[in-house]
Amino acid sequence: MITVTILGAGNVATHLYKAFTKANNVTVSQWYNRSLKPLNHYKNEVDITDDLNHLKEADVYILAVSDDAVAELSEKLPFENKIVVHTSGSVNVHDLDKKHNRGVFYPLQSFSKTAQLDFANVPICIETVNKPDYHILKALALAIGSPVKKVNSDQRQVLHLAAVFVNNFTNQLYRIGHEITESEGAEFDLLKPLILETAKKIQDLSPYKAQTGPAKRNDKKTLKKHLSILNNQDHKAIYNLLTKSIQKTHNGR
Amino acid sequence: MITVTILGAGNVATHLYKAFTKANNVTVSQWYNRSLKPLNHYKNEVDITDDLNHLKEADVYILAVSDDAVAELSEKLPFENKIVVHTSGSVNVHDLDKKHNRGVFYPLQSFSKTAQLDFANVPICIETVNKPDYHILKALALAIGSPVKKVNSDQRQVLHLAAVFVNNFTNQLYRIGHEITESEGAEFDLLKPLILETAKKIQDLSPYKAQTGPAKRNDKKTLKKHLSILNNQDHKAIYNLLTKSIQKTHNGR
Ligand SMILES: NC(=O)c1ccc[n+]([C@@H]2O[C@H](COP(=O)([O-])OP(=O)(O)OC[C@H]3O[C@@H](n4cnc5c(N)ncnc54)[C@H](OP(=O)(O)O)[C@@H]3O)[C@@H](O)[C@H]2O)c1
Ligand SMILES: NC(=O)c1ccc[n+]([C@@H]2O[C@H](COP(=O)([O-])OP(=O)(O)OC[C@H]3O[C@@H](n4cnc5c(N)ncnc54)[C@H](OP(=O)(O)O)[C@@H]3O)[C@@H](O)[C@H]2O)c1
Repeated sequence: MITVTILGAGNVATHLYKAFTKANNVTVSQWYNRSLKPLNHYKNEVDITDDLNHLKEADVYILAVSDDAVAELSEKLPFENKIVVHTSGSVNVHDLDKKHNRGVFYPLQSFSKTAQLDFANVPICIETVNKPDYHILKALALAIGSPVKKVNSDQRQVLHLAAVFVNNFTNQLYRIGHEITESEGAEFDLLKPLILETAKKIQDLSPYKAQTGPAKRNDKKTLKKHLSILNNQDHKAIYNLLTKSIQKTHNGR
Repeated sequence: MITVTILGAGNVATHLYKAFTKANNVTVSQWYNRSLKPLNHYKNEVDITDDLNHLKEADVYILAVSDDAVAELSEKLPFENKIVVHTSGSVNVHDLDKKHNRGVFYPLQSFSKTAQLDFANVPICIETVNKPDYHILKALALAIGSPVKKVNSDQRQVLHLAAVFVNNFTNQLYRIGHEITESEGAEFDLLKPLILETAKKIQDLSPYKAQTGPAKRNDKKTLKKHLSILNNQDHKAIYNLLTKSIQKTHNGR
């Protein structure tokens, strides 16, 4: 049995709490937040607190708080030599106070409080300052059904950066697709199967091999036509830049 | 029973052939290509030809050939007053020779010859010059299980353009994610669940509502850090442009 204390009550904390509660060999011994309000809903299931001095003994303390709060909160913890991890893609493991056995338990997914999420689809990237601590964090991730990967700080940073490209930026391309279609009274919904297929395709095929379209074919007529349809200058600039990027990747232009 | 003649033997033609063959109330009466080679594999199942003068009577003739070949091929067809459609997102319906009952049967998906594709996930955008022809094309699309939408030429053009954003450009963002991670020895595979989740999310949520991340939050520290990690100038430019685009969408900056 692994005992865990969760600190924070946001998206990640809430999803982790639910997953740990369902897991066989994990007990959430306590849930802390600086204010009790978001925790009150769970007070009949788990010991909740807003007082760091009331924190009980646990195998692992998970700081699922805003990036900027990680360092300060870790400092304020009134104990030492326990495993303390944060869940951030970009905070350095050394930002945690060095009185702790420091580590990172970074879930590489996009969480929102409402949406359901199966942790089988949430790879956990683990880093530990002390080698032996890796095993207990790995066991914790496996207990909730997540794939596990040992990832150092540099790798975690580029994963977080790459996540911005494939998640935030991709979503913005969907947004632009939405604007373009609705501006002509066409339905964005018609693009949804294509969007899903595009994401599914690269589950087995490299994005390099999966590429198609006028930019890759250097189909000048279509490229010109598309630019003439776009009347938003920002969309034009994005069209030009990503077209160039594709051509550089595929034709060395 | 609807009888169909397919012209062309590429990605779209091949997928349509297979779907029509499986459908109950459709018969592929003939399959034409300018060369017989890609059709030979099917010669025991269907009447194949490379001679336009041997084309038989059918309810619908589908020109699933390269965009540039549509006009010329439609002109060469040795008959008139029959329903002749192309399958392109960008070719004008009036590019078809006016001796025909012209139309468009545009499957809004990304096809490749190898990958399986369920036509339930392929919306068919239909346009016809003569109103009554719409119904037979709609019946044809429904017979293969596709959602159907009446779409005029302007709408089809913006759908095709939007498809470039959500398919080709999105795939290039995956490619950049691949480059960034592999450059640090991190695994692109770790991003695959996130990529799928990003596409799934907007099936029910607008891309506007689904947006998250440092650009939307205007998290200057992370934005600066990311730019400092990126050493490829093209990736930097894309990062800047899409960050600005997100900020304009969400913060009116
Ligand atoms: N959301 C994601 O998709 C995602 C994915 C992977 C990793 N992460 C990482 O996971 C961590 C948490 O993210 P989140 O999305 O769960 O954040 P969130 O929903 O915004 O929740 C932030 C939590 O941090 C607490 N907090 C903020 N400032 C604090 C302070 N100074 N002292 C103590 N607690 C403080 C908040 O307390 P109050 O409730 O009192 O405001 C809240 O419970 C971050 O490091 C983030 O980078 C997030
Ligand atoms: N691929 C997609 O994802 C997709 C999606 C929606 C719509 N479309 C549209 O569907 C149509 C076909 O695309 P595709 O991807 O199937 O193309 P493709 O795989 O490249 O196949 C093109 C076909 O056109 C034939 N062709 C080319 N030039 C010709 C000419 N001058 N005369 C007669 N036949 C000629 C080719 O014959 P040979 O075999 O002899 O070379 C080949 O059979 C295009 O209008 C395209 O815009 C494609």
